[in-house]
Amino acid sequence: MSTRQHNIAVIAGDGIGIEVTASTLEVLRAVQKKVGGFELKFDELDYGSARYKAQGSYTPEGWLEHLRKSDAIFFGAVGDPDVPDHISLWDLILPMRQKFQQYVNVRPSAILPGIPPRITNAQPGDLDWVIIRENTEGEYAGQGGRTHAGTEWETATEVAVFTRKGVERVMRFAFETAQKRPRKLLTVVSKSNAQRYGLVLWDEVAEIVSKDFPDVKWDKMLVDAMTVRMVTKPKTLDTIVTTNLHGDILSDLAAGVSGSIGIAHSSSLDPTRKSPSLFEPVHGAAFDIMGKNLANPIAAIMSAAEMLRWLGEENAAEIIEKACKTSIAKGQTTGDLGGKLKTDEVTDVVIKLIEG
Amino acid sequence: MSTRQHNIAVIAGDGIGIEVTASTLEVLRAVQKKVGGFELKFDELDYGSARYKAQGSYTPEGWLEHLRKSDAIFFGAVGDPDVPDHISLWDLILPMRQKFQQYVNVRPSAILPGIPPRITNAQPGDLDWVIIRENTEGEYAGQGGRTHAGTEWETATEVAVFTRKGVERVMRFAFETAQKRPRKLLTVVSKSNAQRYGLVLWDEVAEIVSKDFPDVKWDKMLVDAMTVRMVTKPKTLDTIVTTNLHGDILSDLAAGVSGSIGIAHSSSLDPTRKSPSLFEPVHGAAFDIMGKNLANPIAAIMSAAEMLRWLGEENAAEIIEKACKTSIAKGQTTGDLGGKLKTDEVTDVVIKLIEG
Ligand SMILES: CC(C)[C@H](C(=O)O)[C@@H](O)C(=O)O
Ligand SMILES: CC(C)[C@H](C(=O)O)[C@@H](O)C(=O)O
Repeated sequence: MSTRQHNIAVIAGDGIGIEVTASTLEVLRAVQKKVGGFELKFDELDYGSARYKAQGSYTPEGWLEHLRKSDAIFFGAVGDPDVPDHISLWDLILPMRQKFQQYVNVRPSAILPGIPPRITNAQPGDLDWVIIRENTEGEYAGQGGRTHAGTEWETATEVAVFTRKGVERVMRFAFETAQKRPRKLLTVVSKSNAQRYGLVLWDEVAEIVSKDFPDVKWDKMLVDAMTVRMVTKPKTLDTIVTTNLHGDILSDLAAGVSGSIGIAHSSSLDPTRKSPSLFEPVHGAAFDIMGKNLANPIAAIMSAAEMLRWLGEENAAEIIEKACKTSIAKGQTTGDLGGKLKTDEVTDVVIKLIEG
Repeated sequence: MSTRQHNIAVIAGDGIGIEVTASTLEVLRAVQKKVGGFELKFDELDYGSARYKAQGSYTPEGWLEHLRKSDAIFFGAVGDPDVPDHISLWDLILPMRQKFQQYVNVRPSAILPGIPPRITNAQPGDLDWVIIRENTEGEYAGQGGRTHAGTEWETATEVAVFTRKGVERVMRFAFETAQKRPRKLLTVVSKSNAQRYGLVLWDEVAEIVSKDFPDVKWDKMLVDAMTVRMVTKPKTLDTIVTTNLHGDILSDLAAGVSGSIGIAHSSSLDPTRKSPSLFEPVHGAAFDIMGKNLANPIAAIMSAAEMLRWLGEENAAEIIEKACKTSIAKGQTTGDLGGKLKTDEVTDVVIKLIEG
């Protein structure tokens, strides 16, 4: 029987990114052994702040072309107390999303058994959302500048750019996602009352695309009112699609509301599969707990499960997710979820559950 | 004894705006009679969607100059199912904020006794926030456009404009607000990791202004992480300052988290007092319940109390607020707060409490 081979570029990065990536690779090796039929080749790269401090750049020359050869990218976290965040991010993760046309960012949230609810009117099972965030343009287009910097009359701009093509493709992905889920329910979020160009376009495209999905029930919400709905009527929501910035905000809120911030993960997808997609935990470098074996590795491990699913290894993905959920339900968790275990102990629990 | 006279421009507007404004004027008349020493002159204006539909414009010619003569503006709500929101808003409320340089929007939130908490780790008294939102520029600057509209290569922009002057004045107001509150605690919210021009300016100005307020303890948060903090660690927050769009989102979230969406109100202030400031409930026109005597008038009434405070009538403001809080604590509320009363009944309860 031939073996499916997947080349994974691994960017552990900084802070706890390094620790949770180590855990994740162990888990991936365990599931590969358990399930069989596929082989993961890890290409571990030193992109990150240590490299920046030593050599003046987060990445070597030709890094995008190098990454492009991989089948998927696993990303830990990047950020450093000594480097302004806008430099580290615009040197590495944000350009990747654009260059690889990872135009869909997928952020699932659920209240899992074992995680105490954060809002008063939702129990485990009540909340199961997927946020589809536009990931390459809008408020993260990267355009803008500062004129007369430092003077009293300094003016700075941030230019959000929305293309019909860019809106249409993510909207279509969102309707497809909603259509595949049991409730076939989609909420389109914008701020088209105050933002009357790009966000009105957003709403217009939603109307057009919806015609191709007559079985999807959908509605429109303004982003401000949406936050209230998420907190007070979580059961009325299922699939959500929104712009880059609004998606950034709402997906963190979703993690907060569901109590899952410690396990939240993010997939940046190029649905055309012309470029590699990227999978990462949401938590960031978290320097306050780095090197202490305290980080929760579950977000990174669940993110790797999504990566395997994207690569066609559904069975392996499910086994990992099941192991993660079991460890949480049993309270075998790190401190952020109320447990007493260390990073390596949670990793071991998950691996044992996978080995079965 | 001479009587202080205050000229109030009253824009009831549309939908339930009309109903809650009627309640508010009754309450204002009652408190004026009770307290004495001041006289309110109401200039009731027909600006709104009915006017737009009949005459093609929300406002008559010279409306801004007319409003400018008032001491304050009381606003109900504007919006109509038949008019796109971006038209109604950019014809009336949004230009006012800019023309009158109402550069501070104040949004208080608290969990009041009688209102069931929405999050699991906060009880009445635990949460008492004031959000200071920049109200004239940033993401609501109004710049942008659509090019090649309707074509496949259509591109739309929304240009957020941040001026050093604009950021500095609202930041100063926020530090002053924090300084006057018992905890002297300020959180400065931005998204300066992804938005590296206007939002980096925002953070820089915060650093500079903070030097003048050595007794204010302040920190910086990214807007996405801020939503999580609001839901999970409400007690760590007090005064919050943020940009126009982020403030729009976070202040609705604050109302949702504290369960106070039915009573949330908003003051758009020109702290220089060169132009009139505006006071309004947050709920909007709410056509689904209009004309049914179901609207909660408390948001509008509390907003009018803020207006009196702004006009120097602190005593009258406190009497109104106390009456509103008492009615809530006693459960004498409309359906949205779990009560059984109608709009006019709640109004009567508040008036009786004021009459004492
Ligand atoms: C790190 C940051 C630039 C990033 C974003 O804002 O997109 C993060 O918050 C995320 O959601 O992936
Ligand atoms: C009506 C709308 C334009 C407005 C805003 O976005 O500012 C409202 O949501 C508010 O917060 O006052």
